[in-house]
Amino acid sequence: MRYKLLIEYDGTPFVGWQRQKDGIAVQEVLEKALTVALRKETTVFGSGRTDTGVHALGQVAHFDTESAIDCFRLRESLNALVRPYPISIHQIDLASDTFHARFDACERTYLYRIANTIYPPALETNRVWWYKYPLDADKMNEAAQILVGKHDFSTFRASECQAKSPIKTLNSIHIYRTSDDHIEMIVKARSFLHHQVRNMIGTLVNVGCGKWEINDVRTALEAKDRRAGGQTAPAQGLYFVKVDYQ
Amino acid sequence: MRYKLLIEYDGTPFVGWQRQKDGIAVQEVLEKALTVALRKETTVFGSGRTDTGVHALGQVAHFDTESAIDCFRLRESLNALVRPYPISIHQIDLASDTFHARFDACERTYLYRIANTIYPPALETNRVWWYKYPLDADKMNEAAQILVGKHDFSTFRASECQAKSPIKTLNSIHIYRTSDDHIEMIVKARSFLHHQVRNMIGTLVNVGCGKWEINDVRTALEAKDRRAGGQTAPAQGLYFVKVDYQ
Repeated sequence: MRYKLLIEYDGTPFVGWQRQKDGIAVQEVLEKALTVALRKETTVFGSGRTDTGVHALGQVAHFDTESAIDCFRLRESLNALVRPYPISIHQIDLASDTFHARFDACERTYLYRIANTIYPPALETNRVWWYKYPLDADKMNEAAQILVGKHDFSTFRASECQAKSPIKTLNSIHIYRTSDDHIEMIVKARSFLHHQVRNMIGTLVNVGCGKWEINDVRTALEAKDRRAGGQTAPAQGLYFVKVDYQ
Repeated sequence: MRYKLLIEYDGTPFVGWQRQKDGIAVQEVLEKALTVALRKETTVFGSGRTDTGVHALGQVAHFDTESAIDCFRLRESLNALVRPYPISIHQIDLASDTFHARFDACERTYLYRIANTIYPPALETNRVWWYKYPLDADKMNEAAQILVGKHDFSTFRASECQAKSPIKTLNSIHIYRTSDDHIEMIVKARSFLHHQVRNMIGTLVNVGCGKWEINDVRTALEAKDRRAGGQTAPAQGLYFVKVDYQ
């Protein structure tokens, strides 16, 4: 039987979703917990990787088991077994045998949070990008619309990116102030290149702070060259919000 | 000259606002930073103590100095000097010579946050009280109104409380859902007894979960006996929001 997990995590203590040699990965903690709970070596397949320090509000993963499962009890056990790591299993559901957390995803949603304050964050340390100079969120949003649609996103692609093609379709992007102190970006696509979201917001901040004109984003996109884009925004402001399936 | 500080902190690593023998206090970190920045031993007077693990969004404190101060630069210096502690100085202002952060306060506002979810918090670890059973926020709010006004709050007073009198005036209290997953309480008074806010929310949760009727809160209040009240809610859900001065 195949089961689907809905998972929240604070990315701060992890090397990211996927197993690495140099630290603890979310996947690893989940696999160890499942292996104990199900008394059998169990592998977890995530809907997508997240980098070191990136958070998840709604990561999805699947695993297979021959054991009879009470989803409610297993969730309780897993949430106890993953302690003290900041991982929370929100839900476990029976999925179809052919369901695949990664390949069946038709849309992924990311959130990026900026604390736009002259003072550093305290309660939101590791939860936001602290950007201390004034930002014009409306201008950033206007510039962001240039990126919507099917494009070659090489300008926003990390050099280590393993995707076959730099061509992706950005379904939507919205940037807005949630308060005097906070700016958020919500971005949706079937899939993203490595560092694409962080490179996009890092570039759009150039418009927000007045260094770039709105049309400079178009020029950067059309350059298809990472060197034409802005900085890579810090991981701690990024949240993997949800995955939609057909 | 007397100056006023507006301060945010994550209470998690601290023994509270006030200096203690067994750990680091917020006051201590601020005094050390000010002593370095002003090159003279400096004492900080807070508007009120907070317990171990309690957060502040807008604590106020004052200090005196003979040095000429550029408030903007001093804020930048202090925010650098308090690192790596999760304290942020939002603002520094010149105050009148007679201003006193504690004695001049005419209203204090506290926020209490509950994560009302069947799964534990991950990103909000140490930021909320995790309460996994269903709560009726409207009923809690109705019961809370019994506490508004001038009363003997002995039922909600910690045994270690040093206040001269258990009589306090609660200006207002509001309990509401901010989402399916979160309940918040906002409470205002000139001053509070030790643990009063945490004991009030711990008692109101008895109504929210259906164990108590609304009028049982009146009975508890009238008993003027701590044993008649509910549990002391955990510190990590409590935020000192702001202090108002005349």
